[in-house]
Amino acid sequence: MTIEHTDFPEPAKVTTVACIGIGTIGAGWAAYFLAKGYRVRAWDPSPEAEPRLRRLIAAAWPALSSLGLAPGASQQNITVHTDLAEAVDGVGFVQESAPEVLDLKRSLLAEIDAVTAPDVVIASSTSGYSMTEMATQAATPERLVVGHPFNPPYLIPLVEVVGGESTSTAAVKWTSAWYEHIGKSVITMDREVPGFIANRLQEALWREALHMIDQGEATVEQLDRAITDGPGLRWPIQGPMLTFHLAGGEGGMAHMLDHFGPSLKSPWTRLDAPELTDELRAAVVEGCDDEANGRTVGELIAERDAAIIAIRKVIGELKAGPR
Amino acid sequence: MTIEHTDFPEPAKVTTVACIGIGTIGAGWAAYFLAKGYRVRAWDPSPEAEPRLRRLIAAAWPALSSLGLAPGASQQNITVHTDLAEAVDGVGFVQESAPEVLDLKRSLLAEIDAVTAPDVVIASSTSGYSMTEMATQAATPERLVVGHPFNPPYLIPLVEVVGGESTSTAAVKWTSAWYEHIGKSVITMDREVPGFIANRLQEALWREALHMIDQGEATVEQLDRAITDGPGLRWPIQGPMLTFHLAGGEGGMAHMLDHFGPSLKSPWTRLDAPELTDELRAAVVEGCDDEANGRTVGELIAERDAAIIAIRKVIGELKAGPR
Repeated sequence: MTIEHTDFPEPAKVTTVACIGIGTIGAGWAAYFLAKGYRVRAWDPSPEAEPRLRRLIAAAWPALSSLGLAPGASQQNITVHTDLAEAVDGVGFVQESAPEVLDLKRSLLAEIDAVTAPDVVIASSTSGYSMTEMATQAATPERLVVGHPFNPPYLIPLVEVVGGESTSTAAVKWTSAWYEHIGKSVITMDREVPGFIANRLQEALWREALHMIDQGEATVEQLDRAITDGPGLRWPIQGPMLTFHLAGGEGGMAHMLDHFGPSLKSPWTRLDAPELTDELRAAVVEGCDDEANGRTVGELIAERDAAIIAIRKVIGELKAGPR
Repeated sequence: MTIEHTDFPEPAKVTTVACIGIGTIGAGWAAYFLAKGYRVRAWDPSPEAEPRLRRLIAAAWPALSSLGLAPGASQQNITVHTDLAEAVDGVGFVQESAPEVLDLKRSLLAEIDAVTAPDVVIASSTSGYSMTEMATQAATPERLVVGHPFNPPYLIPLVEVVGGESTSTAAVKWTSAWYEHIGKSVITMDREVPGFIANRLQEALWREALHMIDQGEATVEQLDRAITDGPGLRWPIQGPMLTFHLAGGEGGMAHMLDHFGPSLKSPWTRLDAPELTDELRAAVVEGCDDEANGRTVGELIAERDAAIIAIRKVIGELKAGPR
């Protein structure tokens, strides 16, 4: 089988997608695709999967409706299959969300690859394996791509896209274009890094938290509140880099690094920081300037403050319960 | 001078507070105290500080009004002084927010201590020094406490409270009670840890981000979007521990640790995780159960989803601009 990678269909022409494996993540993807108006063909080896899937979709539907359904979107546009070839028949995209067991991923991706039409990309929801590790048994690894979502996939926009050593550039590009077409916030990585990007950041925080519990320095409740009532209120609007851009005052990130750079040597976490070379300094400062895109620190502060107020208000209302 | 620590006034009886140092953090505190209806006496050695302070308070006032002003709250209830003894005269609480320079903090805290009435707690906004380090020159270090806010102090509820080796337990208790009285979310630490709690978590994430830029694995923009469009949308409602409690499905944190525990050995960050001993596992699982406080994983998922939707909606509206 030869795949002409320029032959992938236009993302806009896809009407049906396959969700292979329908646990929490796979079922979340199914709900999202349905809400975007697609027909979904689901596959799972467990007979208990279907009722669970339908419950999860029904539970997610009010949320999806409130964010806006595509024309024709319906919870009914899904069929559940136990035969893999039947599940991928005629689909324009395959999302694999099997359990995180490397051998299982390897054999399942090879099986999906064997029965899926050659001009269709197969993406894996894996949170931990590289496609290079997972694609070893597949006949056409060129169209196998990681498309890593965040839980719940029907509400969190982020998807990390990265190919393996054998993945074609065209397949990676198509996958990013496809996820963008369906409304996702896509980060396309140009090389495989264990944990991708967001999980590395999240994991660094989690590991430091575990160290603090281990040493009796903080409780679970304190660790959570330190985030929910602290920096967590800023992070939906400005990530860690822009946050520190603002910490530098009018001088922005450049001032921040020059002034607080020495604190990278402080024992403020168990993780040692990299050496703050001129190159690293320049990359961080220029990256923040690019992201600010002409907005002054004052304007960014105003945006941040408006977001924190709005977030605190809606969370306060939710906690107070229905009136 | 002898301080009877049981003689601190009731937090509810405080009517006037001093803000020593009125840069970004000190001015933010002043705005918060004013909004809560207090009279504020500010001190700063720089003649440019006062106009800047008044501009910051005016800029913060609409936000503070929208969150709700205390009866009698007014931007006018502030006086600015260049004499320290005058600034602390008659106040019920002192918040020091001088620049993060250890020698300066040491001498300034000693000076404040020398001129402040004995039954008044003096708190430092320091983000990086321990009170044990800072209180070395003070005559009565028993009433010197760290009260570490987050920027901007008038919007972020979190304050971390911790005493130094010479701080009395009564002073720490009073400080926590005071901040709670004025509506802050208080974390009281029972020992000094460099970076306290939230900054350690934030710093772990920041250091891993710097490593990724240093290695060319991610751009500044990707790092920020990985948070704002990913886990950052969950963190204002559920911190890192409860987030992973939900990642464990119906089995919660116990299942999560048993199933994903081995991933702590994966090279997902440059930070090594602690050994997952039975004791650590028990502390994490019990902490999550305490925090869930009877809410099932399903109920926590419903709370999380409602919050993500609300947060995405308000941020979407803010980004779309005024209609």
